[in-house]
Amino acid sequence: MILTVTLNAALDITYRVPRLRPRDSNRVTEVAERPGGKGLNVARVLAALGHDAVATGFAGGDTGDALRAMLAQETGVTDALVPIGAATRRTVAVVDTAGGDTTQLNEPGPTVSPAEWEAFLTRYRELLDGAQAVALCGSLPPGVPVDVYARLTRTARAAGVPVLLDTSGEPLRRGLAARPDLAKPNAAELASLTGHNEPLRAARDARRRGAHTVAASLGADGMLAVTADGSWQAAPPRRIAGNPTGAGDSAVAGLLSGLVEGVSWPDRLVRAVALSAATVRAEGAGEFDRATYEELLGEVTVTDGPAAA
Amino acid sequence: MILTVTLNAALDITYRVPRLRPRDSNRVTEVAERPGGKGLNVARVLAALGHDAVATGFAGGDTGDALRAMLAQETGVTDALVPIGAATRRTVAVVDTAGGDTTQLNEPGPTVSPAEWEAFLTRYRELLDGAQAVALCGSLPPGVPVDVYARLTRTARAAGVPVLLDTSGEPLRRGLAARPDLAKPNAAELASLTGHNEPLRAARDARRRGAHTVAASLGADGMLAVTADGSWQAAPPRRIAGNPTGAGDSAVAGLLSGLVEGVSWPDRLVRAVALSAATVRAEGAGEFDRATYEELLGEVTVTDGPAAA
Repeated sequence: MILTVTLNAALDITYRVPRLRPRDSNRVTEVAERPGGKGLNVARVLAALGHDAVATGFAGGDTGDALRAMLAQETGVTDALVPIGAATRRTVAVVDTAGGDTTQLNEPGPTVSPAEWEAFLTRYRELLDGAQAVALCGSLPPGVPVDVYARLTRTARAAGVPVLLDTSGEPLRRGLAARPDLAKPNAAELASLTGHNEPLRAARDARRRGAHTVAASLGADGMLAVTADGSWQAAPPRRIAGNPTGAGDSAVAGLLSGLVEGVSWPDRLVRAVALSAATVRAEGAGEFDRATYEELLGEVTVTDGPAAA
Repeated sequence: MILTVTLNAALDITYRVPRLRPRDSNRVTEVAERPGGKGLNVARVLAALGHDAVATGFAGGDTGDALRAMLAQETGVTDALVPIGAATRRTVAVVDTAGGDTTQLNEPGPTVSPAEWEAFLTRYRELLDGAQAVALCGSLPPGVPVDVYARLTRTARAAGVPVLLDTSGEPLRRGLAARPDLAKPNAAELASLTGHNEPLRAARDARRRGAHTVAASLGADGMLAVTADGSWQAAPPRRIAGNPTGAGDSAVAGLLSGLVEGVSWPDRLVRAVALSAATVRAEGAGEFDRATYEELLGEVTVTDGPAAA
């Protein structure tokens, strides 16, 4: 079983409007809802790849109920979310059909009480017993300590479970110090963390800050992995047009599935890049176009990078 | 008891953002929710005026649950909403704190099944037994026949209950033909219905289309009533600055309370205009500033208009 943690899960709402008119009244022509938050997206892709995926984190209120009801309809993802009193946040993506662009509105998230936080830690320890790997994903809701990912990383490592960390800002900085097995920042997050714009240099810096391995997603350029044994970069054969939302989460699912299946680093990168590109071709986060994925598995190229610094 | 009907109730969500950036990601700093829809706003104001207010219409899904939970916390409004399978719509008002303007996003509403529609009609007939007046308010959700207000008006009149109709477009046009006791369009709705921009002429035309009395809200200019016994116009003593959302609903509550209390038409108009202006000074729809209301009751001026046409 692979465990994913989403402390700030969301009910993702998509509105389509013919043309968004700011400062005016807009009639929404189409409404779609889905469970959101990075860890839930990762779990969904893992389940689609045939893995037993368990999602934990927090859910509460009517929005939490709606999220859990949709999660229950999906095959393969086991709901291990911890109930809270405050309501799960919403995100609203307003798609302007004529302009082809999206305006995003993100609620801050529910305040988690100390008792709820303790209940989560108990649940997390229980779930680690039996997990082959754990992914710690996304932003933090109010009330959760900023060093949370460091604490969750240490707990997982004490239980012998490999940890993948996918977050940004201060939670990333603090989390790295607890020595996760793998950190997956994107290029911007990596630059913000280290002050280096050059991905190889920044990834090496992030390793020095504590991550055993750094896999940096480089958008359309693919992914760079810097490990103790060497570095590799995988790139898609061509630029894939579409919606990049969730592409990073699919890459995490690719890396995790490769980890628990024991495949080599170059093959993990191929899987992550193919899944990422196949997500760009799909409707939304947590989904991927299977035909594109299978086709790209044979087309993603891997080049050896410099040896470990 | 005064009955209000809201066929397309809404969960009204307000987001505050420091500055709305279209085509970008916006962090919402403040989230507020309230039960929405014109009839629910009317019921809330009636309850605040000391009347026994009962709200019916449709509610469903997690958004409907949230709406009903908030309605239960309010004193005075009795929840007689009919449950449906589809989810109650949301409206999202994005307030740009820096610009002071609002971008509104309105979901279309749930599809009501024929069986749900029949369940509503049964409930409506039961509720009319004991109602002193009924207000039919707002837009229609998908699946509800466009002549619904005509049918609901005829049913109420057969039960001897006075009917106030507050809607627009085709539902208004059809509803008027069933001869409601009172129609309350605003100036734009009246012009759209009749093709006349001059309110007195348009109101007279609307009476010829079936309404016994027409009370037209004229925004900051107050309200014009055209009845079988004469016409009156009431105006606030000064322009009131603030948020006009819900001002028309408060005017409906003023007219209804005046109707069931048997006060004269000029006094009904004074009450409607004072409530309307006091709502502009309050936070949101369904609320009014009581001090402003009581002060304006003595300051709204009423002028006699031409005799009935």
